[in-house]
Amino acid sequence: MKRCLKLTIMYDGTAYHGFQRQKNGVTVQEVLEEQLARLFGHSLTITGSGRTDQGVHATGQVVNFQTTGTIPTDRIVHAAKSILPSDIVVVKAEEVAEDFHATWSAVSKRYCYKLYLSPIANPFYRNFTWHIEKRLDVEAMKLASRYLSGTHDFLAFCAAGGSAKSSVRTLYSIDVTEKKEIAEWRYWGNGFLYHMVRNLMGTLVEVGLGKRRPDSMIDLIEAQDRRLAGITAPPQGLYLEQVYYENDSVKP
Amino acid sequence: MKRCLKLTIMYDGTAYHGFQRQKNGVTVQEVLEEQLARLFGHSLTITGSGRTDQGVHATGQVVNFQTTGTIPTDRIVHAAKSILPSDIVVVKAEEVAEDFHATWSAVSKRYCYKLYLSPIANPFYRNFTWHIEKRLDVEAMKLASRYLSGTHDFLAFCAAGGSAKSSVRTLYSIDVTEKKEIAEWRYWGNGFLYHMVRNLMGTLVEVGLGKRRPDSMIDLIEAQDRRLAGITAPPQGLYLEQVYYENDSVKP
Repeated sequence: MKRCLKLTIMYDGTAYHGFQRQKNGVTVQEVLEEQLARLFGHSLTITGSGRTDQGVHATGQVVNFQTTGTIPTDRIVHAAKSILPSDIVVVKAEEVAEDFHATWSAVSKRYCYKLYLSPIANPFYRNFTWHIEKRLDVEAMKLASRYLSGTHDFLAFCAAGGSAKSSVRTLYSIDVTEKKEIAEWRYWGNGFLYHMVRNLMGTLVEVGLGKRRPDSMIDLIEAQDRRLAGITAPPQGLYLEQVYYENDSVKP
Repeated sequence: MKRCLKLTIMYDGTAYHGFQRQKNGVTVQEVLEEQLARLFGHSLTITGSGRTDQGVHATGQVVNFQTTGTIPTDRIVHAAKSILPSDIVVVKAEEVAEDFHATWSAVSKRYCYKLYLSPIANPFYRNFTWHIEKRLDVEAMKLASRYLSGTHDFLAFCAAGGSAKSSVRTLYSIDVTEKKEIAEWRYWGNGFLYHMVRNLMGTLVEVGLGKRRPDSMIDLIEAQDRRLAGITAPPQGLYLEQVYYENDSVKP
């Protein structure tokens, strides 16, 4: 009997050339497809909620696929643990309707970007945060973040290479939490352009370094010119935290 | 002019065959000696406060060595960052008296052991905690820990291969902190036998799993028989956190 399955996946992206299959290196999708094929007894193709770049992590990536395999849904998490490498973990497995599509059924996503603020490096955070050695004015960055919430044309923060037709997106919220040397930015929105979070974060860090004024974000959004915005923050600070679907009862 | 230097080092031990130089693989000591030699312009031998095993981490390892190199002491942290791999970081450099010896001048040490308590694995903790899938009775483990404080013969928790003449040690305190799924055990003592923290932790986890009673620690200490105690906890949960010296003004 055919089942449609939705898996929620965590991965440490350090060792991978991103999520999506490609010829240049090992990707999360490739490893998942190969190992899930062993588990379900037939080759399969998974659909992810979206790609993540090389070095980017996920605590809540979502994939879906069809299977004729017999392993019960409530045994998948445990069984997957024994065959997947330890940097990719299936945290949840659910049966879904046939029309569920990890990409197109998604109604919003939440990304987290982590900064490590210290004059001295920390080896335990090197693959999991962006280390900023200079003093950062986090309050100025929070102020700047407020101008980004809402519905805007984010073309100034969109890298070339994306496939989106429109660059208008809605950010429902940007939440900032600080704990010791770690500052986390959580972006919840209805969609994200290619490199959008990393470009926003790179620009916000320039605000924190005093290179831009907080209200310069207004001008950047209006100008719609990528060359005027800040650098692209490095990948290892970025986490795809959660993908929300139409029937999810809990919203962020 | 000859200077005696004390460096405080953090390292992610995942990629190393332990701290101490050996023929079978790359060690932290070897990398430090080779890279510091470039920095100071002459070959040098460092003395560590003690060895750590393969996969064990340090947030406060201490080493000392003599140098005739000219780089100012207050420039070492920054200069070391540019030549060391990112999993080894010099966090502090101090000039010390000629009789300072990282091993013999140490008066006490603090180790931390981290458990990850969850039925589901977490890829971000796989190299940095011991993952316990089953439910653990942390309160019973805390109770058992209390019997370990004080001066005891810890022979039951000492692996063969250590060089210590006596197996009597004093544990000044064992502090337990819990934060979400992470439980941390901090052992502060005047000295530690080979594998002592990992053997204590392995035994405490057996208490938490209900395989031993908390007060069985009394019998284990009295019996002085390694075969009666628990398993050796895996290396990746262990951190050498701090080494205290005679003149340190702040004690734990």
